[in-house]
This record gives sequence, C-alpha cells and structure tokens, in this order.
Amino acid sequence: MSSNKQPVALAKAYRLLNHGPVTLVSSAASGQRNVMAASWVMPLDFDPPKVAVVIDRNTLTRELIEASGEFALNIPCRSFASQTLAAGSISGREHDKFAELNLLTHAASQISAPLLDGCIAWLECRILDEPQVQQRYDLFLAEVVAAWALPEVFGNGHWQDTPAGKRTIHYQAGGAFFSTGEQFSVSSDDCRQ
Amino acid sequence: MSSNKQPVALAKAYRLLNHGPVTLVSSAASGQRNVMAASWVMPLDFDPPKVAVVIDRNTLTRELIEASGEFALNIPCRSFASQTLAAGSISGREHDKFAELNLLTHAASQISAPLLDGCIAWLECRILDEPQVQQRYDLFLAEVVAAWALPEVFGNGHWQDTPAGKRTIHYQAGGAFFSTGEQFSVSSDDCRQ
Repeated sequence: MSSNKQPVALAKAYRLLNHGPVTLVSSAASGQRNVMAASWVMPLDFDPPKVAVVIDRNTLTRELIEASGEFALNIPCRSFASQTLAAGSISGREHDKFAELNLLTHAASQISAPLLDGCIAWLECRILDEPQVQQRYDLFLAEVVAAWALPEVFGNGHWQDTPAGKRTIHYQAGGAFFSTGEQFSVSSDDCRQ
Repeated sequence: MSSNKQPVALAKAYRLLNHGPVTLVSSAASGQRNVMAASWVMPLDFDPPKVAVVIDRNTLTRELIEASGEFALNIPCRSFASQTLAAGSISGREHDKFAELNLLTHAASQISAPLLDGCIAWLECRILDEPQVQQRYDLFLAEVVAAWALPEVFGNGHWQDTPAGKRTIHYQAGGAFFSTGEQFSVSSDDCRQ
C-alpha cells in the first residue's frame, strides 16, 4: 500500500492534520523502535511546516524521540482503527508492537523512524529545541522535513473523495472513534443575506 | 439554543476537542470583542484540563487575548459552517463580525469573553504564562476553567448520536470542510487473530 505514495509539497503538509485525525507516532533510536497513538497533534505553522504534539513523559516513544530528535506522524485510515487503538493501549517497554500487531514498515526519507505500511499519509518530523515546554507540558514542537500521501486519498494538495475505509479517523475515548464524513464547502456569504 | 447548555465535568472537557473539530475563538478586552476561527487547537492535559491554540500575531483576537488573558473556544456544528468560515475570513479590525454575521452571544461564567449562541459546546480558558512560545510560535497554552455542552450533543461525558446538522465539523482549506461522520468502536484485539 505504501509503495505508490507520493511526496506532498511541504507548504501543503499542514492539510494532512488540519481536520484533526488521530495519528500514529513512530520513532527509533539505538536499535529500538516504537509506535504509539496520538490525537493531541496539530499544525503549528505553514511553511516551513511545523507541528505540535503531546508525548507523555512515561512512554518509550518519549525516550526514543529525545534520543533521536525525530519522529514520524503516520495517518491511519478506518481499516487501521484496531491497530491504532492497540498501539495506544500497550507499552513498547513490554511489547514489540510491530510484531504483535503485525505492523509492516518502510524507510523514511529524512529520518530514522520507520513509516507504517497501511497508513494513508506520513509526516517526517525533526524536533525543535524547546526543552521548557517539553518538560513542563510534554509538548514537542517539530519541523516537518518531508511529507507523503497516497495520491488517491490526498492528491494535488487536496483530500480526494474516497470510500469511508480509506478516510482518516478521529478518536474520542474508550475505543470510540468518529469516522471522517463527507466533504462539503460553504461560502462566507451564506450567512449574510 | 444555548439556554439549555449543561456543565461538562472538567476532567472530560478534553473530549470536546479530542477528535479535532474546528473552533471559534471569542475574546474581549477594554470594551472590544471579537471572534475568529481556529483549527489549530488541541488538548494539552486532562485534569486540570489544558489546551494549546495558535493565534496569529496580526489578529485583533491576539490583542484582546493578550490584554485579558482569556478566551473561549466555541465549537460550531454543521449548520454554523458559513459563519465559521466568514469569521475566519475577515478581520475584526475592519468588521464588527457579531453584527455582520448576525452572531448572538451569552455571558461566560468565569471569563469576560462572550460565548456564541448556535454552537454546541464551549470551553472557557485562561492563558498560562508562557511568553516564549507565544512570541516564537504564536502558540498559546491555557487552562480550561469551565466547559459546557448541549446535553443532546455531548452528555454524560460522551458524544451522543445526533443528526449531521448538530455534529461538529473539521476544516480543510479554501472553504472546504469534512463533516463528522458516524461513531464506531473497535477492540484492540481485532488486529491480533
């Protein structure tokens, strides 16, 4: 599934996150790697694109990101919801999530963290040096150094019309998600008769 | 519509934002008030709940938030999409958005910023003193001091099943949104046969 991914122009990379989908954060350092789910992710700037993400201080992911200075945001689709929940429910300290959840990966272009097969978009990120908010709030700010998407899902800088199974998903709590619904457009004049 | 809103327990307030809906940021200071759209918003902590939001340095909203130390996140539903787009497209410096967009408001409980009628949930926020990330990244961190929702939309700490018109919306770019689709649940065992 990942083999036909295409680069996303960096100035359009924020659009992969703008609508608030859940993400999977992958990381690697010193021969270890891990993946966890994160909903607390948002764009922080357009160009160069930056993101903000909350990474709990007790996670293995935190350790790997602090060691490597890098992570990837993998954007799952509905058919990947169970893996997303599982990756957010067990710890990489006790589980090899890649083996247990049958997760396949491919190499990123700019960073050492692996990219997950079966996702529909990917952002390769390098953290910015902001130790104060990292320590106080578990908040990581990062620059997006490469971005990718399946062109049938996100092409020419826009989300395409795709069947629900290929759309992103939005996490609530306790295993419950919202699916991403249909697209619609409005005019700002509609409310000014 | 706002008259029957109910308080949301602070420990559950993050769930109003967890799935990434677009928000309307309202603010007030020194006899002025404003409202702007923001998609770059996320939870930052559970309890006491905190949020992170990007507020561009050139906006009137930024001026009012810096003067008052407060803002509200109003969560619009699909029937409020046109007002949301319009509030994000014109500047409060040249336009009285409340008058031009026919926005009615009611008083918040803890802060001076007004809450918008016609939305389905509201978070009253007080900013945390983090001038460095404010200035470098236009990033505001804030504590949620009160939260509210229409109980038929979000009740007992959970999103309810509601018609699409009452669901939250997710902004892409250029007037295009995703509607929030249906809810679904998965088990983390589904991927481990």
